[in-house]
Amino acid sequence: IQQLLSEPSPKAPKARPYRVSNADRSVRKGIVAHSLKDLLHKVRDTLMLADKPFSLVLEEDGTVVETEDYFQALAEDTVFIVLQKGQKWQYSSKQGYQL
Amino acid sequence: IQQLLSEPSPKAPKARPYRVSNADRSVRKGIVAHSLKDLLHKVRDTLMLADKPFSLVLEEDGTVVETEDYFQALAEDTVFIVLQKGQKWQYSSKQGYQL
Repeated sequence: IQQLLSEPSPKAPKARPYRVSNADRSVRKGIVAHSLKDLLHKVRDTLMLADKPFSLVLEEDGTVVETEDYFQALAEDTVFIVLQKGQKWQYSSKQGYQL
Repeated sequence: IQQLLSEPSPKAPKARPYRVSNADRSVRKGIVAHSLKDLLHKVRDTLMLADKPFSLVLEEDGTVVETEDYFQALAEDTVFIVLQKGQKWQYSSKQGYQL
């Protein structure tokens, strides 16, 4: 047991950096988290969401991230958008092809 | 038996991340699954399809994915569309080339 406590299991998720924007992308913050639960908690504090419900979606295509295993499969520095009630994911006007 | 339990078979499919949208692409969720059967099961729960029949098709061109071996040949983060009775795959209006 001593061994198990002093050496983290290889399965224990490592803390990794992520980026989180609000729905209109006017604010983007860097946050380190070791789990989806941890990230949700830190997003709530960092973006001052008080106790309002919100979802995290991928900035690139609006995919909702709501399971720990999907979260762990994401790359470092994945960019999330926070969506609160009534907010919808939209393509960034800064992406895409402009001629 | 101990051996079998502690070392997963090299043939056991690894859990991989996928993305699944409903037919009108208004919702997209990230789901980790190790098999087509597992994904179908999780899609039913995640998109709240109750016991209605549905198919999974590739978002890019509507290819129906109904065999385990074809599923295993797909890349990580493949995007699927759920089609229920009467629904048809359509090109996304957000894709394609706009000039």
